[in-house]
Amino acid sequence: MAKALVEQSSPGQAQSERRIVIYDTTLRDGAQAEGLSFAAADKLKIARRLDELGVHYVEGGYPGSNPKDQDFFRLAQDIEWKNITITAFGSTRHKSTSVEDDPGVKSLIGTGTRAVCIVGKAWDHHVTAVLDTTLENNLAMIGETIAYLKRHGLEVFFDAEHFFDGYHASPEYALAALRAAHEAGADCLVLCDTNGGSVPNDVRNVTRRVAAEFDVPIGIHVHNDADLATANTLAAVECGASHVQGTVNGVGERCGNANLCAVIPNLQLKLGYKVIETDQLQHLSDAARYVSEIANMALNPFMPYVGHSAFAHKAGYHADGMAKSQIAYQHVDPALVGNEMRVLISELSGRSSVLSRAERLGLRLSRQSEDLHGLVEEIKELEQRGFQFEGAEASFELLIKRRQPDYAPPFTLLDFLVLVETRGGRSILSEATVKIQVGDEVQHTAAEGNGPVNALDTAMRKALVSAYPQLERVRLLDYKVRVLDESSATAAGVRVMIESTNGHTEWSTVGSSTNIIEASYSALADSLEYAILVTDQ
Amino acid sequence: MAKALVEQSSPGQAQSERRIVIYDTTLRDGAQAEGLSFAAADKLKIARRLDELGVHYVEGGYPGSNPKDQDFFRLAQDIEWKNITITAFGSTRHKSTSVEDDPGVKSLIGTGTRAVCIVGKAWDHHVTAVLDTTLENNLAMIGETIAYLKRHGLEVFFDAEHFFDGYHASPEYALAALRAAHEAGADCLVLCDTNGGSVPNDVRNVTRRVAAEFDVPIGIHVHNDADLATANTLAAVECGASHVQGTVNGVGERCGNANLCAVIPNLQLKLGYKVIETDQLQHLSDAARYVSEIANMALNPFMPYVGHSAFAHKAGYHADGMAKSQIAYQHVDPALVGNEMRVLISELSGRSSVLSRAERLGLRLSRQSEDLHGLVEEIKELEQRGFQFEGAEASFELLIKRRQPDYAPPFTLLDFLVLVETRGGRSILSEATVKIQVGDEVQHTAAEGNGPVNALDTAMRKALVSAYPQLERVRLLDYKVRVLDESSATAAGVRVMIESTNGHTEWSTVGSSTNIIEASYSALADSLEYAILVTDQ
Repeated sequence: MAKALVEQSSPGQAQSERRIVIYDTTLRDGAQAEGLSFAAADKLKIARRLDELGVHYVEGGYPGSNPKDQDFFRLAQDIEWKNITITAFGSTRHKSTSVEDDPGVKSLIGTGTRAVCIVGKAWDHHVTAVLDTTLENNLAMIGETIAYLKRHGLEVFFDAEHFFDGYHASPEYALAALRAAHEAGADCLVLCDTNGGSVPNDVRNVTRRVAAEFDVPIGIHVHNDADLATANTLAAVECGASHVQGTVNGVGERCGNANLCAVIPNLQLKLGYKVIETDQLQHLSDAARYVSEIANMALNPFMPYVGHSAFAHKAGYHADGMAKSQIAYQHVDPALVGNEMRVLISELSGRSSVLSRAERLGLRLSRQSEDLHGLVEEIKELEQRGFQFEGAEASFELLIKRRQPDYAPPFTLLDFLVLVETRGGRSILSEATVKIQVGDEVQHTAAEGNGPVNALDTAMRKALVSAYPQLERVRLLDYKVRVLDESSATAAGVRVMIESTNGHTEWSTVGSSTNIIEASYSALADSLEYAILVTDQ
Repeated sequence: MAKALVEQSSPGQAQSERRIVIYDTTLRDGAQAEGLSFAAADKLKIARRLDELGVHYVEGGYPGSNPKDQDFFRLAQDIEWKNITITAFGSTRHKSTSVEDDPGVKSLIGTGTRAVCIVGKAWDHHVTAVLDTTLENNLAMIGETIAYLKRHGLEVFFDAEHFFDGYHASPEYALAALRAAHEAGADCLVLCDTNGGSVPNDVRNVTRRVAAEFDVPIGIHVHNDADLATANTLAAVECGASHVQGTVNGVGERCGNANLCAVIPNLQLKLGYKVIETDQLQHLSDAARYVSEIANMALNPFMPYVGHSAFAHKAGYHADGMAKSQIAYQHVDPALVGNEMRVLISELSGRSSVLSRAERLGLRLSRQSEDLHGLVEEIKELEQRGFQFEGAEASFELLIKRRQPDYAPPFTLLDFLVLVETRGGRSILSEATVKIQVGDEVQHTAAEGNGPVNALDTAMRKALVSAYPQLERVRLLDYKVRVLDESSATAAGVRVMIESTNGHTEWSTVGSSTNIIEASYSALADSLEYAILVTDQ
């Protein structure tokens, strides 16, 4: 690593050989975003996706501050990760506790991870005004904590909190904090722009100074409060940092952290560093959308590289230019990051994307067919009504199946009634009745549930299971609601996405309506129909 | 910080004295954002707000490409602007038309503006592959168009399209395009990163080269496709550009343009340039929200400086630090840009954040009181059940109110019944009945709705409005659903967040349950109770 650092210090030289380590903190610092909260199961799903994406470290949480993070670490221990090392985050020992007795340090070791990240103070003002201890004690806290964790055989990263602000206030003290960590054996010194207000020139100068002084890998961790997180990360890498911390979609406290969905392609495609594999990079857009779904935060459509509009051309002369030259109005080929070019309000782009989606599912449609035209029209109309087939492949596949001449619906809903009631302060009752026709038989049945959707789900299965016993094994993995056009408040449309499994296959379906019960019914019915028609029995 | 930068950048002049001209293109390039469309009246409203903000030029539209932009220019002529010069955008003459006969050039002159901006090609590949003309003719098109407009007494800016990509392909040709504009009398040479893929090092080197060669003001116009628009703008200014083009909130084609809401405060507060007045800067957040309202695009809450979350502190140790030092976790004072600090209430936070939140609401609690202890415990228990008070200040305030000895509930729910039904393929019916006690009166009533929650909302208002006529003015602005622990699928908990207004105040409430109807009821009931107890009547 030290060799790589030397190589790059003269710009323009052999940068393509320098590897950058990506340290993802979506699950810890990212979870500090307003409105974001991950259950342990959510965290596992995201970690699996990051493992596929090929990042190197995934910081799972802060066990000393948030006891429920311990669930995640317990579950993560049983998984064989292909690429990532799970890391736990913690702070230096308490100012008046010995490191051996510090509960935070104990909980870090209790996570069973091979690597930990320790945050410590590098700004003298913070030591005296916030931590309320002496400058000497803070250095002792850093050194003792890291030395202790190294004695436990762990890989230890040191996050030097407020490093850039601290360096401006007192370069000597900020460097002394790094030195304390380095002498205690820290494997990487991470310079943090905790308040996110640094500008690239500062980051460049300070990182260069640090990289010249220390012979261990230097890391960079910045926030986006001045809209400069991506630029500051690149500036640090250009001046010697080789370990980059950030989050998927840039989620995080206040304005967020450095956005790995911009940082990774910039480093790899523009500056020639080696970060992840080319085929992994092609899953970047998928990963961004997946994390935003799990987080239930709509992905900013204008987000560089991965946003839905990132390669969308609206101005007429842009669309025209794109038809003449693929580089006319695009900075990179969207396929490199798994995104796609769209020309807005265009039949042609509609066809192309439906065709390419169908191909991905192994369904053959001809480009000229009447059927393709009809399908595109139907999809457009459904999307107008709030459906979205991205991430609901089973519903998309059923759309195609239902247009085929030999299609016969496996069941037909005749009636349903859902009621939710409370009387005289008693607990709430939810009940659904359904009447469903299968062949010549009519099943009329009812069920209670935890809520109206759960009652409806239970009643539908009950009505269908005698005709289709394979539904016995089907269960729902995930149920999501997104309010569309939120400004219409309780009269707004809602989109429901459901993920189901029969134990060996998983599939996703979608429904949309202004009525949440109807939207849920539609997604549930698709899920059950898919289980009957498509999955192995 | 500014001093350090002066030492590094090329011009010898003290930067604190250097003025930057802001050229806003929200109404032209900004309107190319997917999903955005401005009527002439919208454009006027935004121009007025920009005039108050104190930017210098406002590009109103592209009359040659969009005839309805002419309405805007006609209306704008009758207004006495305090700060802004209205500008019209157009391109160089057609490749085979004389400038006198070119309809686009004519329509520019027809707008009656004092200033125009002309885009021309600076990338040889574009000239031959997209424009399909000779390199020589393109230079003639630039020179003749600008000379003609100068003869009409106009101030003329030259937008050198794809300048940075062009410079990489052929520096000679890119510079020749600038020279053609300069010799024809252009008042400013604007270097455009049209595809938005340049990195700051490139922008720095190329801008420095151009600034050294030409003795007219240099401008910068960049897009955000690599998440570097703010950094690239700052880099150009540091290397000699004094005219900055961008849009409010960074709206624009694909990933958008440089975001003036980040560029202006960075230049003024961090780099020490003179851009707008200090009291004008204090209206930046308002302006950002206003434009997003007119554009009907929700403002990204995480947007630097102006976003709702930009100064929101969630981690417990951040909230604690902010209580001890105002600079602990903030890069600038939010008041400088008209934003405000918020301390979020969440599972990660403890007494400090509950206390400071209560203080901000004007509620006094003592740090040692029994009551504070009880409140923190109650919040924790509710959060365990899925409530979340960050962003639901009204529910939080009601929690405190309800613990006070003189609290009396303004109404009590006795019963409700919600049903959703479809029979024989008819469209879905949603109906709610409620029985609510107010004082000694019992109101028993019913309503239909677009869905079950809308029906319940309507029935509750109907039951309460005779006792509390101020509810007549209350309406819901926003309704959000978040599924918690999604892996429990339809039996999972849900959290509902509601935002309400009475026309002059807005408030947010939360409800949580495994039953979406119950969660919605709880948030609706809090909203109505808040309207009765707290808002002005």
